[in-house]
Amino acid sequence: MPLKPDLPLPEAEPQRVGYAIVGLGQLTVDELVPAVRTSEHAHVVAFVTSETEKGLALARAVGLGEDDVYTYDDFEQLTGRKDVDAVYIVLPNALHREYVERAAKIGKHVLCEKPLGMNADDARAMVEACNSAGVLLMTAYRCQYTPEHWAARDAVHSGKLGKVKLLDSIHVQVEDDPEAWRLKKELAGGGPLVDVGIYCVNTLRFVLGQEPQWVFAALHQPDGDPRFVEVEESLSFMLGFPGGLIANGLTSYGARTTSTLRVLGEKGSLLMDPAFPYVGVRLSLTDEQGELTPSFPSSDQFSQEFDHFAQCIREGRRPWTPGEEGVQDHVVMDAIYESARTGQVVRLKTGQGKDAFRGTPPEVPGRD
Amino acid sequence: MPLKPDLPLPEAEPQRVGYAIVGLGQLTVDELVPAVRTSEHAHVVAFVTSETEKGLALARAVGLGEDDVYTYDDFEQLTGRKDVDAVYIVLPNALHREYVERAAKIGKHVLCEKPLGMNADDARAMVEACNSAGVLLMTAYRCQYTPEHWAARDAVHSGKLGKVKLLDSIHVQVEDDPEAWRLKKELAGGGPLVDVGIYCVNTLRFVLGQEPQWVFAALHQPDGDPRFVEVEESLSFMLGFPGGLIANGLTSYGARTTSTLRVLGEKGSLLMDPAFPYVGVRLSLTDEQGELTPSFPSSDQFSQEFDHFAQCIREGRRPWTPGEEGVQDHVVMDAIYESARTGQVVRLKTGQGKDAFRGTPPEVPGRD
Amino acid sequence: MPLKPDLPLPEAEPQRVGYAIVGLGQLTVDELVPAVRTSEHAHVVAFVTSETEKGLALARAVGLGEDDVYTYDDFEQLTGRKDVDAVYIVLPNALHREYVERAAKIGKHVLCEKPLGMNADDARAMVEACNSAGVLLMTAYRCQYTPEHWAARDAVHSGKLGKVKLLDSIHVQVEDDPEAWRLKKELAGGGPLVDVGIYCVNTLRFVLGQEPQWVFAALHQPDGDPRFVEVEESLSFMLGFPGGLIANGLTSYGARTTSTLRVLGEKGSLLMDPAFPYVGVRLSLTDEQGELTPSFPSSDQFSQEFDHFAQCIREGRRPWTPGEEGVQDHVVMDAIYESARTGQVVRLKTGQGKDAFRGTPPEVPGRD
Amino acid sequence: MPLKPDLPLPEAEPQRVGYAIVGLGQLTVDELVPAVRTSEHAHVVAFVTSETEKGLALARAVGLGEDDVYTYDDFEQLTGRKDVDAVYIVLPNALHREYVERAAKIGKHVLCEKPLGMNADDARAMVEACNSAGVLLMTAYRCQYTPEHWAARDAVHSGKLGKVKLLDSIHVQVEDDPEAWRLKKELAGGGPLVDVGIYCVNTLRFVLGQEPQWVFAALHQPDGDPRFVEVEESLSFMLGFPGGLIANGLTSYGARTTSTLRVLGEKGSLLMDPAFPYVGVRLSLTDEQGELTPSFPSSDQFSQEFDHFAQCIREGRRPWTPGEEGVQDHVVMDAIYESARTGQVVRLKTGQGKDAFRGTPPEVPGRD
Repeated sequence: MPLKPDLPLPEAEPQRVGYAIVGLGQLTVDELVPAVRTSEHAHVVAFVTSETEKGLALARAVGLGEDDVYTYDDFEQLTGRKDVDAVYIVLPNALHREYVERAAKIGKHVLCEKPLGMNADDARAMVEACNSAGVLLMTAYRCQYTPEHWAARDAVHSGKLGKVKLLDSIHVQVEDDPEAWRLKKELAGGGPLVDVGIYCVNTLRFVLGQEPQWVFAALHQPDGDPRFVEVEESLSFMLGFPGGLIANGLTSYGARTTSTLRVLGEKGSLLMDPAFPYVGVRLSLTDEQGELTPSFPSSDQFSQEFDHFAQCIREGRRPWTPGEEGVQDHVVMDAIYESARTGQVVRLKTGQGKDAFRGTPPEVPGRD
Repeated sequence: MPLKPDLPLPEAEPQRVGYAIVGLGQLTVDELVPAVRTSEHAHVVAFVTSETEKGLALARAVGLGEDDVYTYDDFEQLTGRKDVDAVYIVLPNALHREYVERAAKIGKHVLCEKPLGMNADDARAMVEACNSAGVLLMTAYRCQYTPEHWAARDAVHSGKLGKVKLLDSIHVQVEDDPEAWRLKKELAGGGPLVDVGIYCVNTLRFVLGQEPQWVFAALHQPDGDPRFVEVEESLSFMLGFPGGLIANGLTSYGARTTSTLRVLGEKGSLLMDPAFPYVGVRLSLTDEQGELTPSFPSSDQFSQEFDHFAQCIREGRRPWTPGEEGVQDHVVMDAIYESARTGQVVRLKTGQGKDAFRGTPPEVPGRD
Repeated sequence: MPLKPDLPLPEAEPQRVGYAIVGLGQLTVDELVPAVRTSEHAHVVAFVTSETEKGLALARAVGLGEDDVYTYDDFEQLTGRKDVDAVYIVLPNALHREYVERAAKIGKHVLCEKPLGMNADDARAMVEACNSAGVLLMTAYRCQYTPEHWAARDAVHSGKLGKVKLLDSIHVQVEDDPEAWRLKKELAGGGPLVDVGIYCVNTLRFVLGQEPQWVFAALHQPDGDPRFVEVEESLSFMLGFPGGLIANGLTSYGARTTSTLRVLGEKGSLLMDPAFPYVGVRLSLTDEQGELTPSFPSSDQFSQEFDHFAQCIREGRRPWTPGEEGVQDHVVMDAIYESARTGQVVRLKTGQGKDAFRGTPPEVPGRD
Repeated sequence: MPLKPDLPLPEAEPQRVGYAIVGLGQLTVDELVPAVRTSEHAHVVAFVTSETEKGLALARAVGLGEDDVYTYDDFEQLTGRKDVDAVYIVLPNALHREYVERAAKIGKHVLCEKPLGMNADDARAMVEACNSAGVLLMTAYRCQYTPEHWAARDAVHSGKLGKVKLLDSIHVQVEDDPEAWRLKKELAGGGPLVDVGIYCVNTLRFVLGQEPQWVFAALHQPDGDPRFVEVEESLSFMLGFPGGLIANGLTSYGARTTSTLRVLGEKGSLLMDPAFPYVGVRLSLTDEQGELTPSFPSSDQFSQEFDHFAQCIREGRRPWTPGEEGVQDHVVMDAIYESARTGQVVRLKTGQGKDAFRGTPPEVPGRD
């Protein structure tokens, strides 16, 4: 039966960019492994974990063998693996720097989960380590790779909304396990801000292509709740951007999942709601004609990341969200925490020009 | 043909509470006159205006005569009109106090548009004038009389959302006439905050039944735009409520109409979007079951106000939104402007107990 | 205070077209009286009812006197009322013809509720009576006067959807009073089809501007339900239009309120959901760009009808939905009942040309 | 770093039920291969195709070798492949029967795409072939395996909607390639009805758990359109179910994609819109409380199918949608075509009892 001869097929496995995934938490099992298997240019060739049994099971599940599972102590054995082009660090935040530095030392490119580090200084050190070693570093900001978020950004930059005046973003979810590492300051570096609020900060910066000049913030850390002994429960922040633009943000580990982004312009407004889920991001644009909900080609956020970094590795290009992009969010978040502590506005040096900390734009499905 | 004998009919005109409407702007012509004609307990019996021709035309349109139209100079002639129980002040903000005081002096109850005055001191004087004269004063906060806003408040107080953590409210619209009185500080008292942002402040206070303890704000007044020589274009504020709750707000005269209220609780969240239009307020409640958009009986916000105040007059009860409720918004808005001016957090004395500044709850269609 | 001098005001009462409303059921009290009071060119000047007390109460409520309330026996006394230009017949269907004929005889124009009569022959007699008497007859199809329904029609005719292929419409609601006149065949002429299903038939014809060529239908009349002894509970119909277009329809008195219209074209589709409520009609248009929900100026469906017919009377023009439009729905509904009875397809003669049975297009708010 | 030890991991590859996929069209490449890779109990171990190059590329892409790609002529060589438990037939409809019979002959279980065959007789022969050979046959009705469709069915059966009265379903899409095999009667067996309209028929039967007693239908096959020389462009059908329930359906290859299901009950209604996409099915339930949009766990429709049939194979259970379920849709569709041809109602023998043609209910994510 003659079928269309030109269907795009994924690359053959051996030619793809090979990743070792470091850390086998829920994100790895539920999202990353399925995503890499359906990507175009990447494949997973090794796992690094302290849980050997789990690593072996997952390896078997994806057609890998015993030799493809490493302990953290054996991490440097990846040196000899020619098929490992890059490592993907999916560990608690406090371990990011160590493993990024160890990866750089053995000459592997690094894709690192957000937040990049524990704070701006920590993250800067990671950037320097990778620069010195001549490997690429990418911060895994999946929302800078979706058609929906790019359409939001394009609506802002095309003038479709008229001059933008105000923005608003919310990202909250419930963390109910007092033992979760995300609630330990030494492991996470902060509370909901660095885990979920970072999406607000990062996406506000992304859609504007600009950097905040000042920050004000307030937080709440309730007495008597064992979850919030070390980190904040809820936090509100205000960011002042060039030209008088102001953005409000809310984040929390104490409220049921909500994620939104709203941009208010003189001619129209845009709403992403939900703004930050893995699937089902919904964008609408409202102007005097009414409300438009554009349709988008389906795409997998994690596959997009795997493929973008794979192509950057092949072509020696700087990723769209390099380490510097991760550093800048830490700069802003450090200021947010400082403002919340002092009750004072904190001023920031801004980046120079549009997209000051970003690299080569990604290919986005359905975008010209 | 036998029809159901028990259909509710409006009261006969002569038995209703009679209103004189002072000021014939667009709100009066487009909303108030139609609303009072379809209310149950109120009717309009006189107009006060400087535009005699317009007043006569409107009087004819509603079946009134030449004698029912008064100039501002003749305002005190309403004294002799036994059928005028109350006056409804629909004038530029700077004139509210004068006409409330003149109405009090001639013994007429007063329904006054929001904002009540030019600032908290101005508004306090109006409350005192009415108290001294023994007349009732109600601030026309239409959104405290709708089934949708009460359902939002009930969701908060019933525990349906779990403990509330964060709130967010937006009200922006475009004012494009540089000559509009709303852009003159001496006539309006402020910019978008006192006109549209007041809905955010007022509704946040209403759904919580509590008062903010501190305020932070920042505003933008662009150079070179003839509209914003005297008042702000855009303003962002943060309110700290008891128990660590934080609410963000955005208001502007420079962005296309958006009006929202969001309440984030540990078990669920609620969204009103749009939150503040005359018709078409939409409420949704989201929890682990999914998203519920409740249905409501149709009702007219302005008729509800006319009828609530009419009943309060008849029964000598304090309205749900008395003058004191209007004063309290000025206290908060004065603090917002002070914070924006100084760049510092401003602390507020809070009211005592729930609904500290409110009176008798209104009858709300469809609410038990 | 200088206000904009050019606000549109309603006409003075004495210059408006005067209506006598015949029948004081819920529609009259809840919708028509408020609507006529907020119309631009019409006012109500008399009521005709068998319930004198109710008539007097309603008259008082709208500023009319005892002399403005008539019994059905006194109907002909309206002859002497120069201020009564038209009568609006809001009676059970079985009485439409008698009162239309009596109105024609005394030279009053007639606005008659839908369905126009009991069947096509009955309705044709009404048209002839009005033609002979030289008075205008309009069928009160409120959905042919809304901006939303005209936008749907315009989307079809502009080619925006590409060639239209299929349509679907639903209108169901619960009638739970076994004593309701709507459930008596001698009073209603039929069941849900002639009361709510007529909206589907009428709107399908309206958006296409064409007439069906054939009909198939099936109905259900459950045993043992006292409500459905005389009329159908539920009915499904299929209409074949020129060019191979097929439209499906569903109507019922046994299912909770739903009202929709869907048009499926080669380039896009449109959905009205809800399609037929008094307020809150929602239109969306979907094509390859996504889904657009246009915004519309607010308007009152009943006021639009009052005003359109008032203008037709003044200018001697044929209304957009004259008696002939009402006849044609009866022709289709008679065929639907015949098909349901015989189980066979019933063929119809079609009208000649587009909008074969319609008159002067109405002014529609927001439409050029 | 201690991670939760109880994360569910997919089974190791060698223990899973092995599938050979027969036919490498777009569905296979874009949906089935990714789905099987993320299923829990299934894996793909062989491909059968006439396009050897494409087969080899796809094999390499999923970690298989040259020996795992077969031509149609070599199909019987799968006999020796112990790791091939089942074949999945993804071929043009006209070839379903041949390959089901060949699979049965070599003792392999069969999952076959819908429609099962070319007509009821063709499909019955397939059922008999599998029964005789003692292999399981499942019709690949993915929409009977989603949480959303089961929630719709549960709403009907739980009485939540009250007694159901009427139903409506639409499935249309554009087929614009005149050379597509789906437009050739000898290859497809019919037009849009057997390809997309089958979802309406199948889902109506599924949510009710009952079988239609009569059918009426009309179709349109435009002159001069090279796509519709052999099959219908558009088709409307009406199905009469026990108890007087009537369901309307629309299907077409000439209109932009729309897919819906609506169930109208005395207490409430449900809407699926879109009803039949691979991802993003949306269900809402409306009753007097308002409109509820339930949330569902994410799941992949094709993975659900792979896993359900895998478990049936392991446990020797009859699948929920066995061959008989596929036969019954052909019975209904044969009647639909007969009615469209004759213009007459066609009566059907109904099944005995609820879910007369179904087997063991599947495990549905999030359903108790």
